Amino acid sequence: MVSRDIMRSTARGFKKYYSPNIKGELRLDTNTNVLGTNPAAERFIREQRIDLNDYPVTYSDNLRCALAELYGLDMNNFAAGSGSDEMLDVLFKTFTEWKDDCLVPYPSYSLYDYFAQMNGGKVVYSELDDSFQLDVEDIISSKAKIVILASPNNPTGNSFRQKDVEEVIEGFKGIVVVDEAYGEYSESSMIPKVDEFENMVVIRTFSKAYAMAALRIGYAVANKDLAEMMNSVKIPYSLNSLSEGAAIAAVKDQEFIKRSREMVLRERPKLASGLSKLGFEPFPSDANFILARSPVDHAAFTEALKNKGILIRDFGSRRRMENCVRFTVGTEEMNTELLEKTAGILEDLR
Amino acid sequence: MVSRDIMRSTARGFKKYYSPNIKGELRLDTNTNVLGTNPAAERFIREQRIDLNDYPVTYSDNLRCALAELYGLDMNNFAAGSGSDEMLDVLFKTFTEWKDDCLVPYPSYSLYDYFAQMNGGKVVYSELDDSFQLDVEDIISSKAKIVILASPNNPTGNSFRQKDVEEVIEGFKGIVVVDEAYGEYSESSMIPKVDEFENMVVIRTFSKAYAMAALRIGYAVANKDLAEMMNSVKIPYSLNSLSEGAAIAAVKDQEFIKRSREMVLRERPKLASGLSKLGFEPFPSDANFILARSPVDHAAFTEALKNKGILIRDFGSRRRMENCVRFTVGTEEMNTELLEKTAGILEDLR
Repeated sequence: MVSRDIMRSTARGFKKYYSPNIKGELRLDTNTNVLGTNPAAERFIREQRIDLNDYPVTYSDNLRCALAELYGLDMNNFAAGSGSDEMLDVLFKTFTEWKDDCLVPYPSYSLYDYFAQMNGGKVVYSELDDSFQLDVEDIISSKAKIVILASPNNPTGNSFRQKDVEEVIEGFKGIVVVDEAYGEYSESSMIPKVDEFENMVVIRTFSKAYAMAALRIGYAVANKDLAEMMNSVKIPYSLNSLSEGAAIAAVKDQEFIKRSREMVLRERPKLASGLSKLGFEPFPSDANFILARSPVDHAAFTEALKNKGILIRDFGSRRRMENCVRFTVGTEEMNTELLEKTAGILEDLR
Repeated sequence: MVSRDIMRSTARGFKKYYSPNIKGELRLDTNTNVLGTNPAAERFIREQRIDLNDYPVTYSDNLRCALAELYGLDMNNFAAGSGSDEMLDVLFKTFTEWKDDCLVPYPSYSLYDYFAQMNGGKVVYSELDDSFQLDVEDIISSKAKIVILASPNNPTGNSFRQKDVEEVIEGFKGIVVVDEAYGEYSESSMIPKVDEFENMVVIRTFSKAYAMAALRIGYAVANKDLAEMMNSVKIPYSLNSLSEGAAIAAVKDQEFIKRSREMVLRERPKLASGLSKLGFEPFPSDANFILARSPVDHAAFTEALKNKGILIRDFGSRRRMENCVRFTVGTEEMNTELLEKTAGILEDLR
């Protein structure tokens, strides 16, 4: 047995991440798009004639052009890569030194800790307030080199107030990352403001609303100086040619995104109200999921729902999310099935 | 203009990497497979029905199983990711601390420096001897935490002596990485010996002999403890589902690899001898390329060949490779065209 002493000290405690073994359940646990796969991306993959023997274009220039057109920005405002996972990794590699503090609000997306530590950083936390909003003063007074704000926040679902985010950007001395993984479902975005701020980077993914998680595509948007720094650090060819082509096709078909957003905006309040009627306490959401406090034991409820063929995500053992579970907003049919099965389980468990 | 002082100190000097603008030239500059795209991979992509909305299987388990079968090892001897680029990045993140020395032979693949520095490391060099072989004593006496041996070495083309490599592994105190990017063309490989050594990791790519550079696939092979450490550090979903499926199909079709290797073994000595007859001094090669000292100015020659529609790689300005250029071994027809055009250029330039 080779000792883990040989490993980077900040990564020695890492364990492999295991996802559940799926056998046909309705997945309301991953917040991907319940309308199914992206049609433009699928068509592109079916019809493309890329020579697999050719290296991709460096820095995904063609995708960056398509994104520039979508947002009315310049391609040099963008860096693209293999999932927003890669963009997070690149952010730490570009803007942090060894043992730098990396600030993450709590509760938020737990994998930020892993990216910070993988890159030699030390994670410090800033507690969100009772409405899961930012403690602006606390963040600004931090000596951290980078802060990551997921907005809409995961798993709580709410967006941070734009005024608070801008105050943080203006007051914080390091890089402010705004992770808009669920930005397509929200009213507000910081992307139109990238050229206004010296120290802000927005990241986005094709794994959620775009329904292309299999292809691993993400991007960062920032002023051209920061984007150039990230591009000079990232691996020039990290995004494969098929994923890049599919992403370009998907960007040019905003109809699917519009339809997906409208479905979520329509169904989300109905699901929240249905859950409330059953005794859940749902938190306000700007995303395609709802965090809710369960009227019965979180683990027993999640397990019972799984036994009836529906997967949701259990956060009930974490501080401040005691007894909470997270539901992806489904289609009308999915939500009806979810609420019916939930009602049955509550009767059994009470 | 945002100052680069905000960047990680070891990455502040990084520049973007630009590849040449191609317009139909014969590419003998990238060492990809001149037989063209991988047929099994192409068939897989054409026929697959992957739901793009599903996340890939974590840790590319299915590809790791296929590789285990190919080599007669266990899937837990492997880590797979988005190109051998990602595997190099993961190696530094798993096994080095900030400012650790990272040892690289000279001359070798210049991008190792970038991966070391990107991850906070400091590059130190060990000079190869006159035959471009390892200085075993020099490497063993180093206090570096990691050493990377490309074998066959790029751009020199030779493999290191297996005896030397094993002496390095036994004597070196850190991790010994054997980069077998061109291993399919060589007689020897360290992969069968991964379970014998505590501190060796072999890396391979699908971008060269496998003819799948567009899909960005690479892997690392090591004893199960080291492989587990790398897997726990790497991003669980970094390899996209299409690339993974195509890689599995390609692994199961060894006929294409065999045909590619046989072509190179047949054509390489003929190309070397043709170059010699024209006044070049080719170095011995175990790979699908030949480094050769030019009888005329390297830059003028490379430029003239480009003007006649053939791209090669110019290394002539680097120390110890003065006036050298690198040719990918082409098919019989390509090499004939190369030698004919070279003869014409030499007449013009002399």
